[in-house]
Order: sequence, then structure tokens, then C-alpha cells
Amino acid sequence: MTREEIFRQILQKQSFLCVGLDPDIKKIPQHLLQREYPLYEFCKEIVDATAPYAIAYKPNLAFFEAEETAGWISFVKTVEYIRTNYPDMLVIADAKRGDIGNTSALYARSFFEALDVDAVTVAPYMGKDSVEPFLGYKDKWVVLLALTSNPGSHDFELQKLENGRYLFEQVLETSATWGGPDEMMYVVGATQGALFSVIRKYAPDNFLLVPGVGAQGGSLEEVCKYGMNKQCGLIVNSSRGIIYASSGEDFAEASAVKARALQQQMSAILANL
Amino acid sequence: MTREEIFRQILQKQSFLCVGLDPDIKKIPQHLLQREYPLYEFCKEIVDATAPYAIAYKPNLAFFEAEETAGWISFVKTVEYIRTNYPDMLVIADAKRGDIGNTSALYARSFFEALDVDAVTVAPYMGKDSVEPFLGYKDKWVVLLALTSNPGSHDFELQKLENGRYLFEQVLETSATWGGPDEMMYVVGATQGALFSVIRKYAPDNFLLVPGVGAQGGSLEEVCKYGMNKQCGLIVNSSRGIIYASSGEDFAEASAVKARALQQQMSAILANL
Repeated sequence: MTREEIFRQILQKQSFLCVGLDPDIKKIPQHLLQREYPLYEFCKEIVDATAPYAIAYKPNLAFFEAEETAGWISFVKTVEYIRTNYPDMLVIADAKRGDIGNTSALYARSFFEALDVDAVTVAPYMGKDSVEPFLGYKDKWVVLLALTSNPGSHDFELQKLENGRYLFEQVLETSATWGGPDEMMYVVGATQGALFSVIRKYAPDNFLLVPGVGAQGGSLEEVCKYGMNKQCGLIVNSSRGIIYASSGEDFAEASAVKARALQQQMSAILANL
Repeated sequence: MTREEIFRQILQKQSFLCVGLDPDIKKIPQHLLQREYPLYEFCKEIVDATAPYAIAYKPNLAFFEAEETAGWISFVKTVEYIRTNYPDMLVIADAKRGDIGNTSALYARSFFEALDVDAVTVAPYMGKDSVEPFLGYKDKWVVLLALTSNPGSHDFELQKLENGRYLFEQVLETSATWGGPDEMMYVVGATQGALFSVIRKYAPDNFLLVPGVGAQGGSLEEVCKYGMNKQCGLIVNSSRGIIYASSGEDFAEASAVKARALQQQMSAILANL
């Protein structure tokens, strides 16, 4: 999917919502547990219910891997289901991978060739040769961790370097030499609203994937005020706030209500773009 | 496995060798491809051949995930095989995981409870709450990336902070407050031999997992000179140099020859401990 295509979807759906698929076997409705692939069944129903309000899905590998082989199969089936039924959706594998060059190349092959997702989250710590193998796939995306939404972001990401910059600024600046805004997005947590104007100095045109709205306390208005660009430039993720809106048999309808509420806020914001 | 138990294995086997299991479907011997789980069959034979000379195995998830569901099953079977047949081996899942707290907790559950490996490699970028969920499992280990062996280590790990330290030094210092040498090891690449004396200032008692000897050009003597402590303190990994010693049907015997050669060098070094 190209940058233009993503922007077109945003305008068409009046939404820049990404639904995070974090299917925890301990939290999904009881009645699904008797199915062969409960995590898949859960995701499938969430996707069908929320698709009118979302432009992207972000399955997080941790939740699938926790169920071992059945979980892995659920992940593959979930990606296939979205691919087949909602071909205009951006599918982001939230895997936070990154390894030495030849090994990252294998991760890239799995995600972009075998699974055919559109984007993968990648960790920057190991530098260029750990990220580059994910680049250069036509219309695929690296979503590089820059400034995350968790408390631990203060430990290293927000450490100041000798040159006066925060580490996350260095990650933005250095990685811009590896790939441009047509192949690289950044993860920027919503909990650090005001820092979005700093981010935009380094990454004016890149899409930013923004977790942390809702359950983690970030404000949608704040993020949009400082973070939007002319092509919207934001993909705002909500996971728990949507997918666990109800723990009963009405979980899918409840998730649609939550997704629709966010989409309507987004539509109002897009009107002022 | 406790620190004492690892040291006892090192003395008994006169080896601190870890064999990296990076089974690439494009590189393993042709005759294995007709088996149901070729990656597993490859690893199984490598393990049987090299077990007398090694104290640890480090399967890298990237290589298994590249083969999707069959690859995942191969990974599970490989871990089970080592667990059952060589219960004194340290099994390190080289996964380089790390996510926000609740998600890292799931990765920890998969690796330490479901799969029952001894150790997992973890990426530090997201800070404390991304690493802590892996700690506190009895006799299990976090192997935190500190200074890696790849060229990209210069991009961020070797950037100087405002306080005059390299980022990797800050990772060592900060993470020491999360967990001690009985539950935390560090990845330190062999390609940066002289920096081992810096590492030991921060982590005098921790085991260091050292990739990069052999294929990546690191020197075993250099690493041991600067990096050993009284309990050896080093687990030196070799992957490609051992497992791809031959591409024919004699691959397992060839791997044993390479592993034995390294073990003998190690034995000579241990004599001077």
C-alpha cells in the first residue's frame, strides 16, 4: 500500500483508526474457547464489526505466540482473513523485530513474502543493518520504534546524547537516511503529546503510528494538534479500549460502538485538515 | 538453571560454547527437505553431534518463523528434544523481544512457561517495563542486548550520552537496577574485544553471551583476555561456523569437528582461569 493509498482510505472512511488485535486467551469471551482457534475467531468477529470505522489492523504477535502453534495458526488465519475480505486495509504486524542483517532479512521474508502483511514494527537499537533488510519491498512499510508510550521510554529513548538531542531524535534523524516517508513510519506514543512537534521537525512527511490513546491515557486532540500533517500523517491505534469493550457474547457489537465513537471524533478533526 | 549450575557445566565439559541454531531452509542439506519438519531434523542432528562440546544452544526464532507454521512446530520440537535428551543444557531462545509491560509479560509466559526455555534475548530500547516481566522467573534468564556484533552497533549503541557514557554503558548501568547477575546476562559482541574491560566495570559478575566469534570476525583470545571473570562469565556463541561446516550428508559430523576444535581452545583457556 502506498502513502497516497493510505491517505485516500483515510479520506474515504473519515478515519485514521488502527484497531490493535491483542487477543489474550484469558480475556476473550468464554464461549469462544471451545472453538479450534479461539484467538482467530475473536479477531475475525472484531474485524467484521469494526471494519467500517478503521483503516488498519495491528495484530500483536506476543498474544498469538502465547498460544504456541494454535496461536501461530490463528495469526496466519487472521492476516489471511483481513487480506481476503478487506483488501484495502493496512495490516501491521506488531512484532518489534530486529536482529543482525542476515537474520533481519529472514524476518522480513516471513512477514512481507510468506505472510504478506503491509508493515512490521521494528526495534532500532541494533542500527542500520538490523532495519535495512525490511526496506526495499515494494509498497511495504517499516514502522520503526521512536518514542514509545510506556513509562520505560524515559530509561533510554528520552536520554540526552552528547549532541544535545534525545536518543529518539537521533533515531529519527539517522533512520531518515535509511528510508524515506514512502517506506518508513514511526511509532510515537500518544502519552507524549507535546513532543509531536519535535518529531515533525525530523519526520515532516512520515506517517506516525500512535499507540497509547485511551487505556494508556493519551489524548487524541493533543496528538492531532501537534502531530498532523497535510496527509493526516497519523494512524492512531486503540487496542484494549475497543476489543475488550465487553466480555460477553456482544463483544463484537460493543467493539463497533467504541470504534465508531473514535471514528466520529476523527472525522470532526479531519474536517479541519 | 542457576549461575552455579552453568559454571559447573563449564568446568565439567571444559567448554563455554553455545551453538547457535540458525536453520535456514535454503542452506540445510537437500536430503532433509523431504522430511515433514526439515528444520527440526537438521537441529536434532546438529545437537546430537555437538552436545559433548557445548553447554548451551541458542535457536534463533527468525529462522524458524521464516517457515511459518511448520517452522514454529520445528522450534517447539527442537526445544523439547534438547530438554528431554540433554537436560543440563542451557536453552536460549534468541528472539530479541521487548514490548510494553503487559505485552512483554505474554512473551515471558510463552517462552518461560509454555516452551520452558532457560533464557530469552531481550531488546532494551523501550526500557524497564519492557524487560521486567521477563525477570522473577525462578532460574530463568534475561539476556539483554548491550553491545551487539553488527556494524549497526555504531548507530546508537556506541553513541555518547550527555553524561559521557556510551548508550550501551547506560543500558548496563540502568538494567543492573532491574535484575542482578543471577537472572540477567548481556549480549556483547566479540567484534569489540577491547570494550570487554569497560563492560566488566558495570557487570563484573554477569554471564556475557558473546556472538561474533568466527563468521563475524571476533577473536576468542581477545574476548577471554578482557572478558573472563572467576566463574568464566562467558558463553561464546558460534552459529554458521559450526552448523554449516558441510552442506552434504556429513553435515552433523562436520559440525562436531568444528565444535570440538572450539571446545579444545576453550579448554586450554580455562586451564589458566
